[in-house]
Amino acid sequence: MPIVTILPDGLRIQVDTELTLLEALRRASIQLPAICGGRGICGKCRVRIVKDSLTAPTEAEKKHLDRMIDSGFRLACQAKLIGDTIVDVMQNRASLVKQRLSIIGYEPSVEAKPGIMKVYLKIDKPTLENVKPYESIVREALTKLGFNISSFSLEALRKLPKALKYMGITVTIDGEEVIDIDGGDTRSSLYGLAIDLGSTKIAAFIVDLSTGETLYGDGIVNPQIAYGEDIVSRISYILESEENLEKLRIIVVDAINDLVSSICRMIGVDQNSIYKVTLVGNTAMHHIFYGIDPTSLVYSPYPAVSVHPIKAKASTLGLNVNKSAYIYSPPNIAGFVGADAVADILASRIYESDELTLLLDIGTNTEIVLGDRNLLLCCSAASGPAFEGMEIRYGMKAVEGAIERVKISSNGLNVEYTTIGSVKPRGICGSGIIDAVAEMYRVGVIDSRGAITDRTSNPRIRSTATGREFILAWSEETAIGEDIVISQRDVREVQKAKAAIETGWLILLKHYGARVEDLSKVLVAGAFGTYINPESAKIIGLIPDIPSDRVVFLGNTAGSGARLILKNNDEMNKAIDIARRVKYVEIAVDPDFHRIYLSSLGIPYMELIGFKSFK
Amino acid sequence: MPIVTILPDGLRIQVDTELTLLEALRRASIQLPAICGGRGICGKCRVRIVKDSLTAPTEAEKKHLDRMIDSGFRLACQAKLIGDTIVDVMQNRASLVKQRLSIIGYEPSVEAKPGIMKVYLKIDKPTLENVKPYESIVREALTKLGFNISSFSLEALRKLPKALKYMGITVTIDGEEVIDIDGGDTRSSLYGLAIDLGSTKIAAFIVDLSTGETLYGDGIVNPQIAYGEDIVSRISYILESEENLEKLRIIVVDAINDLVSSICRMIGVDQNSIYKVTLVGNTAMHHIFYGIDPTSLVYSPYPAVSVHPIKAKASTLGLNVNKSAYIYSPPNIAGFVGADAVADILASRIYESDELTLLLDIGTNTEIVLGDRNLLLCCSAASGPAFEGMEIRYGMKAVEGAIERVKISSNGLNVEYTTIGSVKPRGICGSGIIDAVAEMYRVGVIDSRGAITDRTSNPRIRSTATGREFILAWSEETAIGEDIVISQRDVREVQKAKAAIETGWLILLKHYGARVEDLSKVLVAGAFGTYINPESAKIIGLIPDIPSDRVVFLGNTAGSGARLILKNNDEMNKAIDIARRVKYVEIAVDPDFHRIYLSSLGIPYMELIGFKSFK
Repeated sequence: MPIVTILPDGLRIQVDTELTLLEALRRASIQLPAICGGRGICGKCRVRIVKDSLTAPTEAEKKHLDRMIDSGFRLACQAKLIGDTIVDVMQNRASLVKQRLSIIGYEPSVEAKPGIMKVYLKIDKPTLENVKPYESIVREALTKLGFNISSFSLEALRKLPKALKYMGITVTIDGEEVIDIDGGDTRSSLYGLAIDLGSTKIAAFIVDLSTGETLYGDGIVNPQIAYGEDIVSRISYILESEENLEKLRIIVVDAINDLVSSICRMIGVDQNSIYKVTLVGNTAMHHIFYGIDPTSLVYSPYPAVSVHPIKAKASTLGLNVNKSAYIYSPPNIAGFVGADAVADILASRIYESDELTLLLDIGTNTEIVLGDRNLLLCCSAASGPAFEGMEIRYGMKAVEGAIERVKISSNGLNVEYTTIGSVKPRGICGSGIIDAVAEMYRVGVIDSRGAITDRTSNPRIRSTATGREFILAWSEETAIGEDIVISQRDVREVQKAKAAIETGWLILLKHYGARVEDLSKVLVAGAFGTYINPESAKIIGLIPDIPSDRVVFLGNTAGSGARLILKNNDEMNKAIDIARRVKYVEIAVDPDFHRIYLSSLGIPYMELIGFKSFK
Repeated sequence: MPIVTILPDGLRIQVDTELTLLEALRRASIQLPAICGGRGICGKCRVRIVKDSLTAPTEAEKKHLDRMIDSGFRLACQAKLIGDTIVDVMQNRASLVKQRLSIIGYEPSVEAKPGIMKVYLKIDKPTLENVKPYESIVREALTKLGFNISSFSLEALRKLPKALKYMGITVTIDGEEVIDIDGGDTRSSLYGLAIDLGSTKIAAFIVDLSTGETLYGDGIVNPQIAYGEDIVSRISYILESEENLEKLRIIVVDAINDLVSSICRMIGVDQNSIYKVTLVGNTAMHHIFYGIDPTSLVYSPYPAVSVHPIKAKASTLGLNVNKSAYIYSPPNIAGFVGADAVADILASRIYESDELTLLLDIGTNTEIVLGDRNLLLCCSAASGPAFEGMEIRYGMKAVEGAIERVKISSNGLNVEYTTIGSVKPRGICGSGIIDAVAEMYRVGVIDSRGAITDRTSNPRIRSTATGREFILAWSEETAIGEDIVISQRDVREVQKAKAAIETGWLILLKHYGARVEDLSKVLVAGAFGTYINPESAKIIGLIPDIPSDRVVFLGNTAGSGARLILKNNDEMNKAIDIARRVKYVEIAVDPDFHRIYLSSLGIPYMELIGFKSFK
């Protein structure tokens, strides 16, 4: 199956051959305008091809693009995939501005069983000889069809008299409750909304609940970021004033409404036809969204307020969906392991695996899960923002101009790097930082304690007032007119970040009574994971040293989990069961915590700890 | 037990001796200001006594009232009841303006079992060694006490973190749901609100759900009256524009909120401590309150939209009570027999009686129920507004100056009457009209077809251009400077009104297969019933001719039914069972309808219909 790499973000997806590039991009949640419906007429889906393994240009393309074909332009709706292809949608940016956050993730296939359905009825009007209340007529018709109806929502009753003016009515049933009634046949409009509410990004997906198909997904930056990049800053803001919790809540609800409204406009879905909503997020985001004070999360012992599943009327929270629609959130596990981690576990299917699997969702706060069908352990590691490019001198987010791959030659310390968008570098993003530190270790620029060596006179290593640094890119090569370097302090930041994560999975292995060799798989969830080089991650000890073909990058499985519980009620029950089974390990209270952490600061992980000794 | 008659409305209540007049008035929902707490200091509860059977004036009264005692004034907080007393609160009108509608009614005694309770818990804070989410700590404490908790409302979760700052917390549980959490011990504040939503008046009652005691009730005029006295006019208004339904809904919700707020202020109850609401009303009022279009009720075959019980969050309807509180309405029976009739049946206990009982709730639309524990039949009669004083030349509402009792001597046709407030008459109210027509028949002023006779030369009978009329009060006696008369047309209106009702119960008797002689009891519900003279009602055929001691006036049983389902969940189940069991009879389609109606126009009921023939 060909891999399509999408610049400038570097998103990679694997798709079937014979798919048009337009469809492939759509699967990566990149929706190019295609006003003509993909018939090669409107030309709005023009993209620039960087590496081409596509079918030959069609007559339509030749007509539209003329000599631009020679400059690498194609119409995405016409070009079909043959092999690996790199496409740059940078120039389509205007129409894509909100779609640059990668929101897709691995999702196991499940049948559509959302607990909601629409039924079309033809109704006999009451007569004087047989005066029946409208509701009773509908109830009898549904009973005849085998439905067990316990109640009608007020909204359904309010719409009933008008609906009965039509020849037939469509009744929407959620469990045993009639939640909506429309005039005419609206059975084809039955949608659901899955929300992945992250600290940094919000992703929303519209799913056709009749088929289970995800129609469209899109992401935006969480606007709460104006009140702090991290959760602690936002909670500090909430502590300032009683009203600030509701303020942050409204900001995020408005953002979701805008996002959903733009998606719905694009794909022609009426928001009133969204009958079910699911939302996952970390515990703090979850609490803020539901208006629950999250400040306990920043005071020892950091308890959550609620970890139980939530079911509420979506409209009471301010979401613009059908007034009778319910919103569901799976349980949280603990203060720092939220419903998003439950969604990760659900989508990854670890909980039903025979093989011992480690799941990492790397971020400022990294959720770590270890287990199989018999035992599930989890913990949270305060890994900090280094892998998001923060606290690193030339660190930056994974956007255009960021160095994302680094190779250093043992011979002469020559540096090869690639940047997102293949432009002159402006800085270095998380995957580039991991590569750089791993390569620096491999070629001996740093030792196993992370110290930059002084035993070479290579000009790329230089001493400054604040310590030594390694020059990745000379100022002539960069877009910022200065050298891009990895400083001694940067290396230390990476060591601390990876040690936090490494300590987490080592302590989980200890609690499980297993060794690295017992691990069958390492799953890396989250958008960040998609871009890192597993070899480098292993070298620095971020992930355990197991064969790379057993390291799998899952992408945004929190979103996948939200879609799973949206589509299928059994998945919600599985999520509840997962949360009940997962044992939360408070790693900081483990007696070996400090010893393991100190060991983990080394590069690569020092083999001084025999796991057997923990058994 | 002494009877207290309260002028100007003529409300009568029976109370224990030794009660102060202030307490007696309070039981009749007349709340006089008593700023000093009933210690005879503030003097705000001064009332005028018309007929005195009270304890002697106290020193406090002597000091306060001085020579006013001789003019019949007393302090209600000081004077205790010895025997029957008549008190006039007319001069207290300013503080009573909203309380002049009689809202009390017979209510069987039931235990408090509202399905809601408060539990006080002392909570151990989470520790690092045992980090538990707040909700889980509360759940465990409740489980230990034997509660089965399925969920927490979002409101409860929102209040949980702040509540935990107290030494202990109070948890409010509705069924299996935790609906509220307060810091400290608030167990003594657990209230319910029962609403009787009539077309003309709205009554609200605050009940202490721990004890089942009704703390206070009050009534106001339904402000929708500005959009039409009767239901048909209000529905016409709704038909004018899409927004008018919501407009009428908001008007009534605002009125209820104002009423409840004034009651709560008076008795010192926090509206947030109202955790359960019940509402009864006729089908049209019920539909409008819940925002359900009632227009089908005015088009043949007049179906209701919904007759099923309703449960909804009170706050989503705009009621200012606890945000998690639910509002419940018992089922309606049919388009013209609403949840208020179910409440009447519930409060009267007909459905469990061994004796065949007839229940009438007389109004513009009269609900009629006939039955016993085995069979319940009901119908609705379009009796029109004659008994409310409308369509009657000198008709008026039952307020000060209305003739409410009439006696005519056979010898010389001398008229004795009493007016509400014992003032000069301004007109005649429903009970006076029934008395007048019955007396006119008894002394031969009208014949059995209702024609005013010409066979006497008594000056009280005179002919005019529009027909004959009978003079009740000469202009010299009246407050309006003209004679108050009963015209031939007035008699016809009374005949039509009573015939509609009489036809209703006759057809129900026919359907039941019973005769008037089989009736054990006649129950008259509704405020109007309280004031009518049963002998007169029997003479004109408004109620069946059975011994007067078996005619019982129940007062506002719709309000009683609302309080019963508020206090005790079994009562709600009984109401649902009643609605299921009651058989609605569409009297207009009965083949004997026209024959019975024409017979019923006569005074008294003509015995030409042998009920046995129907068997």
